[in-house]
Amino acid sequence: MSLLKNDLLLRTLRGEKTERVPVWMMRQAGRYLPEYLVIREKYGFFERCQTPELACAITIQPVDIVGVDAAILFSDILVVPQAMGLEVQLIESKGPFLPDPIKTAADMSRVIVPDVEETLGYVFDAIKMIKRELDGRVPLIGFAGAPWTLLCYMVQGKGSKTFDEAKAFCYQQPVVAHQLLQMITDTTISYLRKQAEAGADVVQVFDSWGGLLGPEDFENLSLKYIRQIVTALKDIVPVIVFAKGAWQSIPEMAATGAHGLGIDWCIRPETARRMAGENMVLQGNFDPAKLLSPIPVIEKEVTAMLDAFGGHRHIANLGHGILPNVPVAHAKAFVDTVKNWRPR
Amino acid sequence: MSLLKNDLLLRTLRGEKTERVPVWMMRQAGRYLPEYLVIREKYGFFERCQTPELACAITIQPVDIVGVDAAILFSDILVVPQAMGLEVQLIESKGPFLPDPIKTAADMSRVIVPDVEETLGYVFDAIKMIKRELDGRVPLIGFAGAPWTLLCYMVQGKGSKTFDEAKAFCYQQPVVAHQLLQMITDTTISYLRKQAEAGADVVQVFDSWGGLLGPEDFENLSLKYIRQIVTALKDIVPVIVFAKGAWQSIPEMAATGAHGLGIDWCIRPETARRMAGENMVLQGNFDPAKLLSPIPVIEKEVTAMLDAFGGHRHIANLGHGILPNVPVAHAKAFVDTVKNWRPR
Repeated sequence: MSLLKNDLLLRTLRGEKTERVPVWMMRQAGRYLPEYLVIREKYGFFERCQTPELACAITIQPVDIVGVDAAILFSDILVVPQAMGLEVQLIESKGPFLPDPIKTAADMSRVIVPDVEETLGYVFDAIKMIKRELDGRVPLIGFAGAPWTLLCYMVQGKGSKTFDEAKAFCYQQPVVAHQLLQMITDTTISYLRKQAEAGADVVQVFDSWGGLLGPEDFENLSLKYIRQIVTALKDIVPVIVFAKGAWQSIPEMAATGAHGLGIDWCIRPETARRMAGENMVLQGNFDPAKLLSPIPVIEKEVTAMLDAFGGHRHIANLGHGILPNVPVAHAKAFVDTVKNWRPR
Repeated sequence: MSLLKNDLLLRTLRGEKTERVPVWMMRQAGRYLPEYLVIREKYGFFERCQTPELACAITIQPVDIVGVDAAILFSDILVVPQAMGLEVQLIESKGPFLPDPIKTAADMSRVIVPDVEETLGYVFDAIKMIKRELDGRVPLIGFAGAPWTLLCYMVQGKGSKTFDEAKAFCYQQPVVAHQLLQMITDTTISYLRKQAEAGADVVQVFDSWGGLLGPEDFENLSLKYIRQIVTALKDIVPVIVFAKGAWQSIPEMAATGAHGLGIDWCIRPETARRMAGENMVLQGNFDPAKLLSPIPVIEKEVTAMLDAFGGHRHIANLGHGILPNVPVAHAKAFVDTVKNWRPR
């Protein structure tokens, strides 16, 4: 494995002082890039995920075009439910659809903890290819969805504002729900381990729907399982946990032993710092919609965000995925403002 | 005007100690009630809002059926944009649709600050009729959407998870955005004043999308205008402010002079109390999806919520609107558990 020429992200995750703040953007390999849209026109969503050459090309695009300090694997959190035996369709611009979601204990007979090498081998092949292609330019981030977020889709069967069917499933059939969460957790641990073995330098766990849960439910249905994942991975590879909206549980997330915590734009950096403790690396938290502002406003607001984090133990990022209608020049303005900023 | 036989809500909002905690549910007059569905089959949405006899019947249903301590006017926050000159369609089970949303400064020529007596007289007629029909059994809550939430719909034209077009409008055209927010504010102040004059005992301002904004944007785009509304109303009628998800700004919301603050289930009652101060009346915060739990679980969890609030300066409610698929018996279990609870 070649030595990294830009290891800002890794040094920051180790708690070291670095010459500047590293920057990447959630969903940076995606729909706002014309170069991605060209590939999307020719190949279906899962075809892009499952063909290492395509996943590799898409993963590297933002490194070349926008100049981020890390690549993140092009894939989807729903490859895991797929590997566990559920049919997953991804309807372009409509989102995920699972025609046979889990509704009862009987449905659990359709769910397996798979051999990840067999079912998700294409991901590890993509990672190896990306690492070769990157040739040490920047580190590569692997990822998986948090068990709670995956349960949301596996039970609700599609996107939702409230995921009330998924929540009702957990409230009405807690034993089955916890069985499913444990199976997802076991699969995710093997999956992320193999991602690290294949060459991922960092892994991130995305709990997109953690913020729909009250603090007790978040502990019981989400964090309990994230904790298992962090415990199993943290001595192998640096782990970043991002549970969008779950600000109430920042102290508990910090205590998992994760190397970094993602935060969204609805929490002040100062508040997150106070809740997470001095030693935690925080990642975020620019409002993705603000990248639709004029460039001078972006520069001003990104600078204000960087000032608020103070330049240490901070990975600059958005508070959620970049929106498809953001001009590439605006994404570049975000990245360049971070690169040019220094602590006062 | 007849004296109230049950004035628990009003005494609680005045900060008085009461014999028990008052309870009502957001969207209590709505789709989970079979009696409502019967009316819905015969009349369109705005027909139900605009016909005082129908609005009156629907408003009173949950008082009779579920036994809540307050009625809330059956209406919709989007009657205000409608009165301001925009076409609003409400497509059953799909949500609101505004075919000609505001996109540019030129579109503002279509927006007026209306004479509310002329455009929204049917609401005041409904309030008068409801007050007569209620005959003092419980107080009546009037309401309006917060200016930011109304702008979201007036600009985006439909529901959204992120309202990124509405946010982009504010970031790209701040002068026009603030002009629109001020026009909505002026309309809302007249509208809520007339609701109070017609007999509303309390008014609530709903900022459903306040939680999509970071703290600075919330102050600038939302709270600044809510503050004007509270200031104009608070000496006329008790005001409750509910900005879902905007927990970061609880201290600032408490400082508006509002009589009560609504909170959602993602914040612990103890945290909200600490942020709002000892004297603020807090309303909430049961997770609406938890009403899909078995009744014994509902009873246990509602009791835990009441214990956490401690029984003083608390109005029991959900943390958001009741879901359409909640069995009526479960809604009753929520209300009865509150009615039977006493501080330990």
